[in-house]
Amino acid sequence: MSNSSGSVKIVAISGSLRKASINSGLVRAAVELANEIPGLEVDAVYIGDLPFLNTDLEVNGKYPDAVEAVRSRVSQADGVLFASPEYNYSVSGLLKTAIDWVGRPPNVWAGKPAAVVSAGGGFGGGRSGYHLRQSGVFLDLHFLNKPELFVRAFEPPAKFDAGGNLIDAATRERLKEVLIALQAWTKKIKYGA
Amino acid sequence: MSNSSGSVKIVAISGSLRKASINSGLVRAAVELANEIPGLEVDAVYIGDLPFLNTDLEVNGKYPDAVEAVRSRVSQADGVLFASPEYNYSVSGLLKTAIDWVGRPPNVWAGKPAAVVSAGGGFGGGRSGYHLRQSGVFLDLHFLNKPELFVRAFEPPAKFDAGGNLIDAATRERLKEVLIALQAWTKKIKYGA
Amino acid sequence: MSNSSGSVKIVAISGSLRKASINSGLVRAAVELANEIPGLEVDAVYIGDLPFLNTDLEVNGKYPDAVEAVRSRVSQADGVLFASPEYNYSVSGLLKTAIDWVGRPPNVWAGKPAAVVSAGGGFGGGRSGYHLRQSGVFLDLHFLNKPELFVRAFEPPAKFDAGGNLIDAATRERLKEVLIALQAWTKKIKYGA
Amino acid sequence: MSNSSGSVKIVAISGSLRKASINSGLVRAAVELANEIPGLEVDAVYIGDLPFLNTDLEVNGKYPDAVEAVRSRVSQADGVLFASPEYNYSVSGLLKTAIDWVGRPPNVWAGKPAAVVSAGGGFGGGRSGYHLRQSGVFLDLHFLNKPELFVRAFEPPAKFDAGGNLIDAATRERLKEVLIALQAWTKKIKYGA
Repeated sequence: MSNSSGSVKIVAISGSLRKASINSGLVRAAVELANEIPGLEVDAVYIGDLPFLNTDLEVNGKYPDAVEAVRSRVSQADGVLFASPEYNYSVSGLLKTAIDWVGRPPNVWAGKPAAVVSAGGGFGGGRSGYHLRQSGVFLDLHFLNKPELFVRAFEPPAKFDAGGNLIDAATRERLKEVLIALQAWTKKIKYGA
Repeated sequence: MSNSSGSVKIVAISGSLRKASINSGLVRAAVELANEIPGLEVDAVYIGDLPFLNTDLEVNGKYPDAVEAVRSRVSQADGVLFASPEYNYSVSGLLKTAIDWVGRPPNVWAGKPAAVVSAGGGFGGGRSGYHLRQSGVFLDLHFLNKPELFVRAFEPPAKFDAGGNLIDAATRERLKEVLIALQAWTKKIKYGA
Repeated sequence: MSNSSGSVKIVAISGSLRKASINSGLVRAAVELANEIPGLEVDAVYIGDLPFLNTDLEVNGKYPDAVEAVRSRVSQADGVLFASPEYNYSVSGLLKTAIDWVGRPPNVWAGKPAAVVSAGGGFGGGRSGYHLRQSGVFLDLHFLNKPELFVRAFEPPAKFDAGGNLIDAATRERLKEVLIALQAWTKKIKYGA
Repeated sequence: MSNSSGSVKIVAISGSLRKASINSGLVRAAVELANEIPGLEVDAVYIGDLPFLNTDLEVNGKYPDAVEAVRSRVSQADGVLFASPEYNYSVSGLLKTAIDWVGRPPNVWAGKPAAVVSAGGGFGGGRSGYHLRQSGVFLDLHFLNKPELFVRAFEPPAKFDAGGNLIDAATRERLKEVLIALQAWTKKIKYGA
């Protein structure tokens, strides 16, 4: 599925719907940073139009249009970046819904490399990622171990502006390192080290 | 919040939307079984009309109508029973969405006793409950420890009929024991042992 | 099991053996702080003499002397404070060993209120507590939800001295709040609110 | 680190000390089954002589002899098989201790492929593996996703004899499939698909 130029294609998914979401800000920053990384493409996939998972909506092996659209985008990617907000010490219902729809048969996540980053208060959203990783065991996602990125969004210096854009240079650099590691991990999983 | 007759009032919430959901079947069975338990009322609360959590939808401290309706039902209850399906080794996006909306300020879950049961393949849905319990730490839900109920729905004898109704007498008895324990736990938390 | 004066008796257990352990420092601080809290006693229980769990060592319903000693100390307490270091994103082997020995039949933890605090880098040791709480479901420990205390030991200002003693006044105050909440939670579980 | 014949070398570690341990039985069966799998060697590593982790025992970059012995065995392996008993819904203190000692600098687990299997009541020991996998994120272990093997040891037909030996042919076949998958996963991680 990598394109002819040999570049690694990643889809980036934010688990938050809020307009000024800082996790969506991480996705936007990842798309921008990919331009600085040779051989890497990062495209955002919006999941806010999904319905809640309901297998009654599966008719003759067809899923609702919004579901098929997300599944198609994921299927064309080599790997996945999740920006996973922590809601009440776990993943958001929105992100979990996307996880579950894309994992319906045939499981589109299967065998794909993935990374998870997060931004928030407290642990920087970190608790959500461990629950997501557990879902990855069943879905056969191959999660990158390191580097992990938990952005403590409300500790100085300011990490995001009022629109949720990632403005802190050091954090951008750390996010770039995650992308580079995900690129290498994707190549290893797909083609060998 | 217990009513004048002194009975314990529980709201029961299914995390599944499917018409023939076996977790919704557990909720229906709990409502029925409450009739056999003096001093216990169990009412089902439907959460399928909720939107995904999006704090942009909070205007002047008001939440969307469907959210306010669920929050109101929970606020009037003494305790909560979750029937939590396991999707990809974690909670459903729907149930997590309800958890998150009801936990918005003021957190309506705070201080309430709760229990979680589940039905499914494999571990009988059991992995979902541990993630739910972690959310409960933040939300200040007091989860019952025992008995746990994980219904292995696809092992003989048949536990549910095609409509998702709980038809196995032994499992009904175990669910009844959960309700009795939740009733006692609720009294302990509210009034002392 | 509360003593005649009506005070609440807590045993405090550190999961670290290192002489200058900061988690042991939290235990020492808790013992000291109890003197400032009317009606609360906190005593440290040392677990470093335990063998690894091995049920072959259980003979005629008797456990090894070191095990019996710890079980006896816990059985006489009204509640438990764990100072749980995070080793590789989970609990220490030492603390888990104590958990497991004390939980052997008859389960001495059963029904007891508990709290967990931790100190460390990163999340301040926080990941360990969630795994400990999962053990508590089986063992029927009633864990306090709030306040949680994760001491980020290596961020300024200095929290501990070179000997592992808690020297930061603000953190001491937060630990004191945990103790006060545990005292109240213990009373609620034992006698009702 | 693979030997000259190109075979994949796995170390298998049981987290239980009990003489008739069924998890140690899984390790013994894995050693035997490797003889049926071309290009795979499985050797058991005994961890029962380890002390509890205590960094005070690290002197001039040297660890206690029993620790160095286990670290050496792991360092020479291409991958790892954990037979992880579930004690109180988490890993055993013994296994966690081995995990922690081998992860001391330089982290000997780093980059190694791994699999976890378990035997027990209830979920077949399954809860322990998810906690182990979380440790693997920090330690940079690459855990195999599938197949998972949780042996429900106390449901008919008999899976183990009184000595803890795996006697059920169907379970042996499933364990063999785990080994074959771990062999393939190890090759992918080391040499590419």
